[in-house]
Amino acid sequence: MNSKNIRYILSLVLMCEAAGMTLPLICSVIYGEYDMVGIWIGTIALCFVSALILSIKTKTRKTMYARDGFVSVALSWVVMSLFGAIPFVISKTIPNFIDALFETVSGFTTTGASVISNLDIVPKSLIFWRSFTHWIGGMGVLVFLVALIPSNSSGSFHLIKAESPGPSVSKLVPKTKSTAKILYLIYIVMTLTQIVLLLFGGMKLFDAVTLAFGTAGTGGFSIDNAGFGQYSSYCQIVITVFMVLFGVDFSIYHLLIMRKFRDALKSEELRAYFGIIITSIILISINCVSYYSNLFENIKHSAFQVSSIMTTTGYTTQDFDLWPTFSKTILVTLMFFGACAGSTGGGIKISRILIMLKSIVKEIKIMLHPKSVSKVKLNGRVVEHGTVRAINVFMVSYFAIFFVSVLLISIDNFGFTTNFTAVAATINNIGPGLEAVGPTCNFSIYSPVSTLVLIMNMLIGRLEIFPIMLMFYAGTWKKP
Amino acid sequence: MNSKNIRYILSLVLMCEAAGMTLPLICSVIYGEYDMVGIWIGTIALCFVSALILSIKTKTRKTMYARDGFVSVALSWVVMSLFGAIPFVISKTIPNFIDALFETVSGFTTTGASVISNLDIVPKSLIFWRSFTHWIGGMGVLVFLVALIPSNSSGSFHLIKAESPGPSVSKLVPKTKSTAKILYLIYIVMTLTQIVLLLFGGMKLFDAVTLAFGTAGTGGFSIDNAGFGQYSSYCQIVITVFMVLFGVDFSIYHLLIMRKFRDALKSEELRAYFGIIITSIILISINCVSYYSNLFENIKHSAFQVSSIMTTTGYTTQDFDLWPTFSKTILVTLMFFGACAGSTGGGIKISRILIMLKSIVKEIKIMLHPKSVSKVKLNGRVVEHGTVRAINVFMVSYFAIFFVSVLLISIDNFGFTTNFTAVAATINNIGPGLEAVGPTCNFSIYSPVSTLVLIMNMLIGRLEIFPIMLMFYAGTWKKP
Repeated sequence: MNSKNIRYILSLVLMCEAAGMTLPLICSVIYGEYDMVGIWIGTIALCFVSALILSIKTKTRKTMYARDGFVSVALSWVVMSLFGAIPFVISKTIPNFIDALFETVSGFTTTGASVISNLDIVPKSLIFWRSFTHWIGGMGVLVFLVALIPSNSSGSFHLIKAESPGPSVSKLVPKTKSTAKILYLIYIVMTLTQIVLLLFGGMKLFDAVTLAFGTAGTGGFSIDNAGFGQYSSYCQIVITVFMVLFGVDFSIYHLLIMRKFRDALKSEELRAYFGIIITSIILISINCVSYYSNLFENIKHSAFQVSSIMTTTGYTTQDFDLWPTFSKTILVTLMFFGACAGSTGGGIKISRILIMLKSIVKEIKIMLHPKSVSKVKLNGRVVEHGTVRAINVFMVSYFAIFFVSVLLISIDNFGFTTNFTAVAATINNIGPGLEAVGPTCNFSIYSPVSTLVLIMNMLIGRLEIFPIMLMFYAGTWKKP
Repeated sequence: MNSKNIRYILSLVLMCEAAGMTLPLICSVIYGEYDMVGIWIGTIALCFVSALILSIKTKTRKTMYARDGFVSVALSWVVMSLFGAIPFVISKTIPNFIDALFETVSGFTTTGASVISNLDIVPKSLIFWRSFTHWIGGMGVLVFLVALIPSNSSGSFHLIKAESPGPSVSKLVPKTKSTAKILYLIYIVMTLTQIVLLLFGGMKLFDAVTLAFGTAGTGGFSIDNAGFGQYSSYCQIVITVFMVLFGVDFSIYHLLIMRKFRDALKSEELRAYFGIIITSIILISINCVSYYSNLFENIKHSAFQVSSIMTTTGYTTQDFDLWPTFSKTILVTLMFFGACAGSTGGGIKISRILIMLKSIVKEIKIMLHPKSVSKVKLNGRVVEHGTVRAINVFMVSYFAIFFVSVLLISIDNFGFTTNFTAVAATINNIGPGLEAVGPTCNFSIYSPVSTLVLIMNMLIGRLEIFPIMLMFYAGTWKKP
């Protein structure tokens, strides 16, 4: 373990967070929230001073190993959540620190589960900050850092690897730094496009920006009590389309920019992703046919909800807890599928599911013909043995953590469906579940212990298990 | 595919079933159920004639391959369930054939889920038959066949392998035929011991025999409406102890007989099995402390329920659906754990779970030290790579089938908890679930399509996925 490297990275992360908080500060000035101006300045100062203290004697950086990468990423996410929660507590919007931490982790991990019951009394600058944490967390703060800080090739790749979702991370271009820059460039352009399209639909600037942040990061925080019913069908459709787009592997966009259209269309993950979305929309529309007066409304809401859950965004135009069980079960299943690897979405990821299904077929072939040789392929290329093994271990850990979490929060004595979907909605970074944590409810019902369990689930889900799990493994902290 | 081999085995299975049905026939004579006497004789004759037709031109047996073994086992279980369901339909106890098939598959797969709401009007010989199917299905009809038919070493081992639960099947002695004989001998002696102990407690012979059948096979069919409340605490405790004993790997008993006590105690699976049972009993007793007037009752019921669910028996002394959520969630978790490999119990099996947890630790070590070499060990021996891979594929298939099943039966529009636990209770061969399929309810609520899905789940669970899955794979039916 190289603690200097880790401290250096933590200090940079806090600097970034301080810089990021200048946006809600500006927001508080614009909306004349003078109480909040002081709170933002104070928190920014605190981040800055802490960053300075952490950065003492860190100039002599050495090579960074995989282990340091994992630990840095896990600690970075914990530290930025701890500092990000401060404004919620001081402003008394969420007086309890654990609840405030839940809200902030929910923001950074792009979950969108909330403990706030009345959004209309929350200062605008805090609403902005909540949505902005989605945007930062979506692409990742360390990917942002790598794009900015002086290159340190192997080390920075370990950081991206630990923070990026999916079974295997590919560099778009040979240099890690350039890859990170391209990713953020695509991210910014797409977010801006969405904002402009929402403004065209007559949406207010504040709403357009914050909702676009939530869409881009596949986060899903609401911004007021009125919800999506206040917006036109046009705006709802724009958001639906962009939710789907942000759930696509960003390397596909890079291929499109490079005019490699054939390679982009060859992606089996992409085809499966759209296949699942379209099939689910059709099935839910048929199942909910008696719930809506006309077909347009039916398909619009089905498409919105499917896109929102599949990409793990979690926005809701409808209380889907009132839908028939078949539709609800489809949504719960989609919670687990999640979006494409290399997108801002959460969940298990389509490519993992494809590789797993293919390895089942491979196993059956071996059973029938024990001497035959069969390999798992994705997009025409052989999937390395190490990747398949890592996916299997990922799945086993995932379900183990899932069961333990459901067990732990069941002490609070809410129903099984509530607990099951609460864990599903947090570990997959979605937001709403069913019953007592359904679209019209919030997560404030849980005790502090359960809240901590759900906080862990959100971090475990966003960082794909291993960075967080390593923190609890004694061997990680031993000297090599 | 060698269809002669398969027909030969199917004919033997039907002969066995015909022989097995002589017991309920005798029972119907004793209880003077003259309608049933004719039904039993007719069904026995039908089995016998069908067996004769199937056995035409099968004398020239060739070597049997793994594929033939899988297909034979899967078809055997389907065929014996189809014939076993006939008495239920003709006697009009269960007029609908799909429901009758559900009841019979539930019997043979040792699930114990029922569609009968009033047991007191069911003829005694049918109650006997139901419980007897548990006993046959527990150890397996093909293991029984292998113990009887002239030895054909490699072929018969494929049959045992496809029918026996657990990640890897070990022969107790070099000869497969002798292994099968030893297994059945232990099984018979233990069943008889339980019957004698129950008779000592003043239980009626019929009750003692049928309940012992259900315990031995880890089945769990009730035999009347009164349930376990009518028996003394002594009898309930005897059943608790024997449920736990039948969930132990039978090779442990073989070691004990061979006086290899040290080897028996070394088994990590055995220690984990008892560890989980004791921990669960303690946690549930504490959680349910306000539900019972005294500690003895509390621990007695907790121990009974934990043993019943963990071993996938499914007997109930209490309506655990009324317990607090934490206790219910423990029971749902135990449903998935299941008993030891090589026992008569269902579920994922403790040894699989141990190997999976160890492979997570191994993966973490590799992450920390990419160049280190680390192997998964169980009971001091290295677990072969092929076994780990098969377990991973098993788990992935298991959860895939689980999700698809919950989705399919959700069309009937019962609650999520009902559907989730219905699938959990059938794929793990337990019996009761929660809410609408809880201990005081039954499975007759589901539509024919959902009933078929649950029938498939029971077979998939009992035969550990692959024999049944191979049936749906086109390659299985191609000529090599």
